[in-house]
Amino acid sequence: MDYPDRFDVIVIGGGHAGTEAALAAARIGAKTLLLTHNIETLGQMSCNPAIGGIGKSHLVKEIDALDGAMARATDRGGIQFRVLNARKGPAVRATRAQADRVLYKAAVRSILENQVNLQIFQQAADDLIMDGEQVAGVVTQTGIRFHAKSVVLTAGTFLGGVIHIGLDNHDGGRAGDPPSIRLAQRLREMPFRVDRLKTGTPPRIDARSVDFSVMEAQPGDTPTPVMSFMGSQDEHPQQVNCFITYTNNRTHDIIRNGLDRSPMYTGVIEGIGPRYCPSIEDKINRFADKDRHQVFVEPEGLTTHELYPNGISTSLPFDVQMELVRSITGFEQAHITRPGYAIEYDFFNPQDLKHTLETRHVPGLFFAGQINGTTGYEEAGAQGLLAGYNAAARSLERDSWYPRRDEAYIGVMVDDLITHGTSEPYRMFTSRAEYRLILREDNADLRLTEKGRQLGLVGDQRWARFEAKREAMEQELQRLRSTWVHPATPEAEQLDSKLKTPLGREYNLADLIKRPELGYADVASLKGEAVEDVQAAEQVEIQLKYSGYIDRQKDEIDQMRRQENTPLPDDFDYEQVSGLSNELKAKLMQQRPATLAQASRIQGMTPAAISLLLVYLKKRH
Amino acid sequence: MDYPDRFDVIVIGGGHAGTEAALAAARIGAKTLLLTHNIETLGQMSCNPAIGGIGKSHLVKEIDALDGAMARATDRGGIQFRVLNARKGPAVRATRAQADRVLYKAAVRSILENQVNLQIFQQAADDLIMDGEQVAGVVTQTGIRFHAKSVVLTAGTFLGGVIHIGLDNHDGGRAGDPPSIRLAQRLREMPFRVDRLKTGTPPRIDARSVDFSVMEAQPGDTPTPVMSFMGSQDEHPQQVNCFITYTNNRTHDIIRNGLDRSPMYTGVIEGIGPRYCPSIEDKINRFADKDRHQVFVEPEGLTTHELYPNGISTSLPFDVQMELVRSITGFEQAHITRPGYAIEYDFFNPQDLKHTLETRHVPGLFFAGQINGTTGYEEAGAQGLLAGYNAAARSLERDSWYPRRDEAYIGVMVDDLITHGTSEPYRMFTSRAEYRLILREDNADLRLTEKGRQLGLVGDQRWARFEAKREAMEQELQRLRSTWVHPATPEAEQLDSKLKTPLGREYNLADLIKRPELGYADVASLKGEAVEDVQAAEQVEIQLKYSGYIDRQKDEIDQMRRQENTPLPDDFDYEQVSGLSNELKAKLMQQRPATLAQASRIQGMTPAAISLLLVYLKKRH
Ligand SMILES: Cc1cc2nc3c(=O)[nH]c(=O)nc-3n(C[C@H](O)[C@H](O)[C@H](O)COP(=O)(O)OP(=O)(O)OC[C@H]3O[C@@H](n4cnc5c(N)ncnc54)[C@H](O)[C@@H]3O)c2cc1C
Ligand SMILES: Cc1cc2nc3c(=O)[nH]c(=O)nc-3n(C[C@H](O)[C@H](O)[C@H](O)COP(=O)(O)OP(=O)(O)OC[C@H]3O[C@@H](n4cnc5c(N)ncnc54)[C@H](O)[C@@H]3O)c2cc1C
Repeated sequence: MDYPDRFDVIVIGGGHAGTEAALAAARIGAKTLLLTHNIETLGQMSCNPAIGGIGKSHLVKEIDALDGAMARATDRGGIQFRVLNARKGPAVRATRAQADRVLYKAAVRSILENQVNLQIFQQAADDLIMDGEQVAGVVTQTGIRFHAKSVVLTAGTFLGGVIHIGLDNHDGGRAGDPPSIRLAQRLREMPFRVDRLKTGTPPRIDARSVDFSVMEAQPGDTPTPVMSFMGSQDEHPQQVNCFITYTNNRTHDIIRNGLDRSPMYTGVIEGIGPRYCPSIEDKINRFADKDRHQVFVEPEGLTTHELYPNGISTSLPFDVQMELVRSITGFEQAHITRPGYAIEYDFFNPQDLKHTLETRHVPGLFFAGQINGTTGYEEAGAQGLLAGYNAAARSLERDSWYPRRDEAYIGVMVDDLITHGTSEPYRMFTSRAEYRLILREDNADLRLTEKGRQLGLVGDQRWARFEAKREAMEQELQRLRSTWVHPATPEAEQLDSKLKTPLGREYNLADLIKRPELGYADVASLKGEAVEDVQAAEQVEIQLKYSGYIDRQKDEIDQMRRQENTPLPDDFDYEQVSGLSNELKAKLMQQRPATLAQASRIQGMTPAAISLLLVYLKKRH
Repeated sequence: MDYPDRFDVIVIGGGHAGTEAALAAARIGAKTLLLTHNIETLGQMSCNPAIGGIGKSHLVKEIDALDGAMARATDRGGIQFRVLNARKGPAVRATRAQADRVLYKAAVRSILENQVNLQIFQQAADDLIMDGEQVAGVVTQTGIRFHAKSVVLTAGTFLGGVIHIGLDNHDGGRAGDPPSIRLAQRLREMPFRVDRLKTGTPPRIDARSVDFSVMEAQPGDTPTPVMSFMGSQDEHPQQVNCFITYTNNRTHDIIRNGLDRSPMYTGVIEGIGPRYCPSIEDKINRFADKDRHQVFVEPEGLTTHELYPNGISTSLPFDVQMELVRSITGFEQAHITRPGYAIEYDFFNPQDLKHTLETRHVPGLFFAGQINGTTGYEEAGAQGLLAGYNAAARSLERDSWYPRRDEAYIGVMVDDLITHGTSEPYRMFTSRAEYRLILREDNADLRLTEKGRQLGLVGDQRWARFEAKREAMEQELQRLRSTWVHPATPEAEQLDSKLKTPLGREYNLADLIKRPELGYADVASLKGEAVEDVQAAEQVEIQLKYSGYIDRQKDEIDQMRRQENTPLPDDFDYEQVSGLSNELKAKLMQQRPATLAQASRIQGMTPAAISLLLVYLKKRH
C-alpha cells in the first residue's frame, strides 16, 4: 500500500545518527518520519555506556550547539561525569559521562516523542522507492510504501550484520536484534562501493560476583561537569564510581592460547576493526611487550548490577572469554551475563558522498553514522544531524549547509571521510583538527549556535539562553578591560602574594587575567562583581588567556580560506603539472578536489605539491 | 564448550513464565540459570500494558501469595488501578492495573537481578542436551553447553514464530524480536504433539494525534487498589486516566471490505486465535448484529505518548488498519506508531504434561507459559512459578507440588490443560473454577502462603507480614464474637437507623456483620477498636458475611476429595463398562485418568457416567 501522507524526509534507523537526523529535519520544519525496527530500542547504546571523551565530546557539544539531543540526554542519564585532560590546555579538554542505559534511552525517546513535525513508525525498511535516478521513498518489510522527497539511511551495524563469537557466527544487527538483510542486498545492487568493517564489545559482568575491594575506585569530578550548554547538575541522577583493574600475564597467556579459535586471527572475519578501540586479543598482539592493560569497570546503570569492563572487547570463544575474565584481579569469581562478540557489517565508501552527506549516485539519498565507516555514538549523532538538516533543506528547497574544518569537528570529520575515505572505522580525535585552539568543546555554542539559529535548527529556548550568555560575556569583557588596579592599593596587595614581582604599574583586570599566575577567579571580584553565569566566566577567561594563540590561528584560517577559494577546474589536467609524483597525480585525478584547500588534504599531499598546482593554475590564466 | 558450573535448573526465556520460573527455582535454593535472547527484554509485555482483570487477578495474587514477582512489579509500574465487579460478590471481584511498560520491565529486571542463586545469561537456546531419555542441559546459539538436572522451557510466541500483517508475513518472535527457529525444529524431532496457535495485537497510536475531548474518561478507583499482599499505594507512580471510544458502522464496513486480504479469512493463518481476545475482524463477524464495539484507550506509560487501543487487535493489511482506526471517534487524525499484527507459533499439547508441568516424554524437561497453549501474562506467570518450583524440587530431590482445583486457580488451569488439552489459546475465567467462593483473589495468601512457606518459596519478609495479618484476623474475629450489643443502648440506636426493624435482643458484633444491611465499617467500632490492618478487616468481613456459602462449598470439596481418592487402575478396561457411550470410552482409554475425580472432568463426562464407573469399580473388588 501507499501510505497516504507524504513526507519531506524519511529517516531509516533509530540509533544515534537516526535520532539526530530525524530531530534536525523536524526542527527546521520538515514533515519527518522516523522508521525503525523497534521503538523500544530508540537511542540504544550498542556498546559502552558512555558519551563523550577526547575528541568525541567536541562533537557532542557541537550537536548540542545546534540544539540536538545527545548532550541533553546525557545530562539526564549520566551517572559519572569527568573532564579529561583537565590540566592540559582548553583545546584538548574533554567531558566524558558514564550513562545509565535505561535513563539515556528514556531521555532520547522522550525528546523524540515530543518533537513536533516528527512521526515515528516501527518497522524494518526493506527497499527504497526510486523515481528515475532519485530516491522517492521507502518500502517496509510488510510492503508499506512511504513517500518522501529525501531519505536518510542510518542503519548502523545492521546491514548484512554477522555476529562472531569464536568460530561460531550467526546473522544479527547487534546482540538480540535481527539484522537488515534485504535492505543490504538492495543497496548492493546500487552503484555504491560497499565493503565490510567490524567492531566488537566486551562480555558483561554481574557486579554481585565482583570483588571491588581490590580495585581502584574512580569517582566523578567535583563539582560535577555538565554536558549540555542548556544542562544543569540538578538534572543529573545519582552519581556513582567507576573502578580500575588490570589484565596480567596469565590473562595474556590465556588469550594467546585461544588465538587459534579467534575469528580475527584465523581469517574468518574479513572486515577491519577500529584501531582505537581494539579488541584485547589485538592489544596483546600489537603491544606484545606490555605486561598489563587497564580495564575500566563501568556500571551499566543505577538499577542494574551489570558492568561494562571497558578494555577487554573480544570475539574469542566463550570458554576463553570466561577464563580471561576470571584471570583479572577482582574478577576471579565473575559471572558473565552477556558474552563479548564482534560484528561485521556493510559500510559504504564515504568518498561517494557530498559534504552534505547526500550520496553522489542517488540524489535525495543521504547516509549517516556507522554505515559511512565511522565508529562511535558521537560520530554517528553528528553525521545524523548534518544529514537530517540537509535532507530537510533539500525537500524544503532551502540552502544546504555544512561546517568548514575551521568551524567544527563535524566539518573535520565529514571532510576527512569524503576526501580520504576510510579503510578502518573512523573515530574522532582532537589531533584530526588543524585549528584545535579554535575548535574547543567549551566554545561550540559560540561557533555554531548563531548559524544554527539562522538555519532554523535552534529553538527559542536555547537561543534565548545563548544570547544571554553572549551578552554577559561581552559586558564582562568590557568591565574587565575598563576596570583598573593601581599599584600599592589594597587590591594590588591581594594580588602581589600570587605574583613573582609586585605590580609595577596600573593594569586593567583583563590584562591581569592573561598572566600565567592569575586566573579569572583571582581577579574578577577585586573590584566590582564577577559575572554570575559560569559558562560566560569560563569563556571570558579562556578568550583572554589564549588570545595570542587564538589570533594566530585565526590568521592561518584566513590565509587558508583565501586558498580554499582558489577553485580547481573540473577539467584540470593533472598529467600536465610537471614535478608532481605519479601517485599524487593519480589521486588528484581520481578524487578531483574542487578547491586547492581540498587538494591540500589529500593523503600524501605536500606544501611543495600545492605550490606546483598554484603555479600551474596561474600559468593557465 | 561445556560451561564449567553445573546448574540445578535452567530456564529458557525471560518472559512472564520464565521470570517466575527462574525466581521460584532460585527461591527454594536451586542454582538457577535464566537464559534469554536479550536481557533488555526481560519482563516485556508483548501486548496490552495491563496486569490482572477477571480471573487473571486471581492468578496474579496466587503468584504473589507464593512470593512471585508479578504483583510486586505491578504495584511499582501500575498507572491506573481498578477493581472490576466491585458491586458483585467477592468471588468474582478482580483487580486490574494499567502498567507503564518501562517501569514494569524495570521492576521485573531489578527483582531478577537481586535474586540470590540466580544467574542471567543472554543468548538464544538452540538445542537441548540429552542424557538418554532425560534432559541434561541446553546448547546455545554459539555452542555453549550449559548442564543442569532440570530445564524449564518458556519460549512464548517465539517457536517458529511467523508475523502476519495482511497477506504479508515474515519470521519473528514478536515485533522487533527474532524468532526461535532452530529450537523449534529440534523440539519437533522429539515425541511431542506440536500444533499452531495464533494471537494478535492492535496498532499503537500517538496520543498527540488523538482527540480525547470526544471520549469518555475512565479514572482509576479511589482509594487506589493495590495488587500485592505486600504492596502499598506509596509504591505506585503517578496515576492517569484511560479513555473509552467505540467502533461504528463505517469501521465495520471498512473491515468487511478488507477481509479478502485478511490472513485469517483467506486461510493464510492456520493457527486458532484466542476466543476471548478476538481480533476486531473476528468480532464484527461473530457479532454481526452489533453496530459498535468498545475500545479502551490505554496509555502505554507515563513518559510516552503511545496508546494501546484495547479492542481492535487486527492482522488486516496496514491500509485497512489505518482506515479503520481513523473511522473511530477521536481517532480521525490518528497516527499509527506500530502496526497491529497476528503471530502464529508452535505450542505443545498440554496433555503431554504432568500436573507438575514436567513433560511426560522427557524427564526433567518442564514446559510453561504460552507454549502450553495458554494466552496472557498471568497464565504464563502462574505456570512458570509452578514449573520452576517443580524443576527445582526434582533437582534438589524434594517433593513435587501442585495445588488442587479447590486450592487455587493455578490448580484449575493446570488440571484443565492436562485433562482437556486445548484447541484454542486458553485464558483464565472465574467460571472455570468449581469453588469460586473459596478461590477468591482476596484470600489467595490465606490459601497458599503457608504452603509456600513450607515449600521454601516464601521469604521471611512476606512470612512475617502474613503471620501478622492472620494473627490480627483471628484476634479480631474473637473480639467481634465476644463483644455484645444490647437493645436500647446507645450502640443499638446507632444501628437501628440502618436496620429495617430495631434490634430485638442482644447480638455479638460478628453476627451483626452477617446482616445484609450492615458491614464491618458499621459495626467494628461500635464498641472497642476496629483492626488497623485493612487486609485483615476485609477478610474478617468476607468470612463472616459469606460463611454459610463458604461452609457449603467446603462440604462439597470434602465429598469430592473422597471421590478423588478413588483410584482408577491403570489397566481399567473401559470397554467392559456397560452403559458408557463409545465416545466416552474412547476418551477414557486415551486419557487414562488416575482418579475418579480426574475422570469426572473429562469433557462430556456426566454424573451418570461417573456412577457407572463407581459401580463397575465396586463390582471388580
Ligand atoms: C558489538 C558492537 C560493538 C561496538 N563497539 C564500539 C566501540 O568499541 N567503540 C565505539 O565507539 N563504538 C562501538 N560500537 C559502535 C556504536 O554502537 C555505533 O557507532 C553507533 O551506535 C552508531 O550509531 P548509528 O546510529 O550509526 O547506528 P546504530 O546505533 O547501530 O543504530 C542503527 C539503527 O537503525 C535501525 N535499523 C537498521 N536497519 C534498519 C532497517 N532496515 N529498517 C529500520 N531500522 C533499521 C536499528 O534498529 C537501529 O535502531 C559498537 C557497536 C556494536 C554493535
Ligand atoms: C502479538 C501478540 C499478541 C498478544 N495478544 C495477547 C492478547 O490479546 N491477550 C493476552 O492475554 N495475551 C496476548 N499475548 C500473549 C502474551 O504476550 C503472552 O501470553 C505472554 O507474554 C506469555 O508469556 P511467556 O512467558 O509464555 O512468553 P513471552 O512473554 O513471549 O516470553 C518468551 C521469552 O522467551 C525468550 N525466548 C524465546 N525463545 C528463546 C530461545 N530459544 N532462547 C532464549 N530465549 C528465548 C524470549 O526472548 C522471551 O523473553 C500476545 C502476544 C503477542 C506476541
